[in-house]
Amino acid sequence: MHSVSQYQEFVTDYLKTQIELKEPRNLYEPIHYILGLGGKRIRPVLTLMSAEIFGTSYKKALSAALAVEVFHNFSLVHDDIMDDAPLRRGSVTVHEKWNTNTAILSGDAMLILAYQYFEFYKPVIFRKLAKLFSKTALEVCEGQQMDVDFEVRQDVTIPEYMKMIEYKTAVLVAAAMKMGAIIAETPKKNGKLIYDFGLNLGLAFQLQDDYLDAFGNPKTFGKQVGGDIIENKKTYLYLKAIEFSNETNKQRLTDLFSNQPADSSDKINEVKEIFVNSGAAAATQKAIEEYTFRAFETLDKMSIGDKKKEILRAFGENLMGRKV
Amino acid sequence: MHSVSQYQEFVTDYLKTQIELKEPRNLYEPIHYILGLGGKRIRPVLTLMSAEIFGTSYKKALSAALAVEVFHNFSLVHDDIMDDAPLRRGSVTVHEKWNTNTAILSGDAMLILAYQYFEFYKPVIFRKLAKLFSKTALEVCEGQQMDVDFEVRQDVTIPEYMKMIEYKTAVLVAAAMKMGAIIAETPKKNGKLIYDFGLNLGLAFQLQDDYLDAFGNPKTFGKQVGGDIIENKKTYLYLKAIEFSNETNKQRLTDLFSNQPADSSDKINEVKEIFVNSGAAAATQKAIEEYTFRAFETLDKMSIGDKKKEILRAFGENLMGRKV
Repeated sequence: MHSVSQYQEFVTDYLKTQIELKEPRNLYEPIHYILGLGGKRIRPVLTLMSAEIFGTSYKKALSAALAVEVFHNFSLVHDDIMDDAPLRRGSVTVHEKWNTNTAILSGDAMLILAYQYFEFYKPVIFRKLAKLFSKTALEVCEGQQMDVDFEVRQDVTIPEYMKMIEYKTAVLVAAAMKMGAIIAETPKKNGKLIYDFGLNLGLAFQLQDDYLDAFGNPKTFGKQVGGDIIENKKTYLYLKAIEFSNETNKQRLTDLFSNQPADSSDKINEVKEIFVNSGAAAATQKAIEEYTFRAFETLDKMSIGDKKKEILRAFGENLMGRKV
Repeated sequence: MHSVSQYQEFVTDYLKTQIELKEPRNLYEPIHYILGLGGKRIRPVLTLMSAEIFGTSYKKALSAALAVEVFHNFSLVHDDIMDDAPLRRGSVTVHEKWNTNTAILSGDAMLILAYQYFEFYKPVIFRKLAKLFSKTALEVCEGQQMDVDFEVRQDVTIPEYMKMIEYKTAVLVAAAMKMGAIIAETPKKNGKLIYDFGLNLGLAFQLQDDYLDAFGNPKTFGKQVGGDIIENKKTYLYLKAIEFSNETNKQRLTDLFSNQPADSSDKINEVKEIFVNSGAAAATQKAIEEYTFRAFETLDKMSIGDKKKEILRAFGENLMGRKV
């Protein structure tokens, strides 16, 4: 086994050898650009880690890990068009640096490239990986569509919201880990369990992201604290606050989330107060703990050594322990 | 063997059973819509025909045929965004009927769905089909990028143009036919030859499309005759006319292709005159014949019965004989 930072290095090094700057340049340059912006490479790291957890070298998993990373970046390029986002990882987004057409087409090419990285594997493994990948990729699209749909809906329920973040975020984390299991050819049961581990950890992570967006430390949280509140995003915190509030507070919260004042600091403070006083903040923390616990529960049933279970648990605790 | 119209019916019937109108509706409704607009279904028909040419039932090829058709429609949805096209097959385009974001996301989902239709096949066949498909799909993206790049370039050569139409159009026709060969598990040599048959026929077909756009019969040609001239598209006809013209005519043609007059009839007539007088029209017809001949040449080397060769030749002649 290796450390997370070692796995990150393996991913980055492998990526450099695989992403050619081919012709036509206008198609491949944006791909090169977005993949070069960095990021934490969490998903491909999980594929490598999972392969070693189940007893095979990370080297055999590099190609699948790259598929996951390239797919993730494809989804960022297309999502950034849809959200009209100016920045990604602190740099200009592809559709802003080039144009929307280039971002559409380069994104399409990345989705296809992702599939090509599975060609490294023999037929039976290839088919399993590609099948899991297609299912996951389609769910990510469905999650993105739900997210778009929710923007104009006032009646989104907590189960609907959980389904949305499951599809938009958690399934790719889960699939990334299951790919390691498939490559290691570990018993099917382990593959199912590591998927559930990734899925629940992914859900916990996304809920924590919702929480930290409001209550994180501005100095260490990567994004602008209060960003979701400014943009009137109906996060878990918001939906829980609506659920727990009396009619007066519910109306107040709905009013606050129906406009975007130029100076948002009063709005942010008032919303955060409602989040705390309604019990939504505490409920969110409870949900984060619950999904983390569910992830750890799957470890008990996995047929791997205790040391490897400890590695997965430590990774999860480290990921969820971020007090940013 | 069946007739082309029978194959078309098989494709349409199978499509109806496979395309579900699932949730989220805003993702799947546009997919349902574009696939329901019809069209000639030439590519999937070729997959079915090819499977039977090489001795297996068309039924085994339906799933791959659907993959090809769904991919083709994905490319139309994304291309129509890029070209800002209002109409497709006489109906409103997806990005106009819904919006650009929906067209991007539904297109992405179609690309993934296309891969999923290969899951019908056992691992070895699946891997071959998916590999050919990925290579082809990436070439289609590259061809589309070249087409976009050529719009602003004044120095496009004939070989570059041929590469562009090969990638943008011909490789999918070729791959559609090769998929039939893969599914029929015919010797590799046949697969290579049917690919070349499809590729050359695809090139001939596209060059004929260029020719008919200027010289076709307005009553029977599906699109507006002169459309390419109105839009200043640098087709084979245009590039040949530039190659064959003296400096004066070259300048005149370049001038004519640098603006879009409100009444285009004078422009169309003058350009067509240059196309004829420069010898570009004749050269285009010669090229069409040459690529059609090259397609038919591959038939001689194919290890199939003479009756089956005759079916392929008749299909080619029928396709190229359209005097529209």
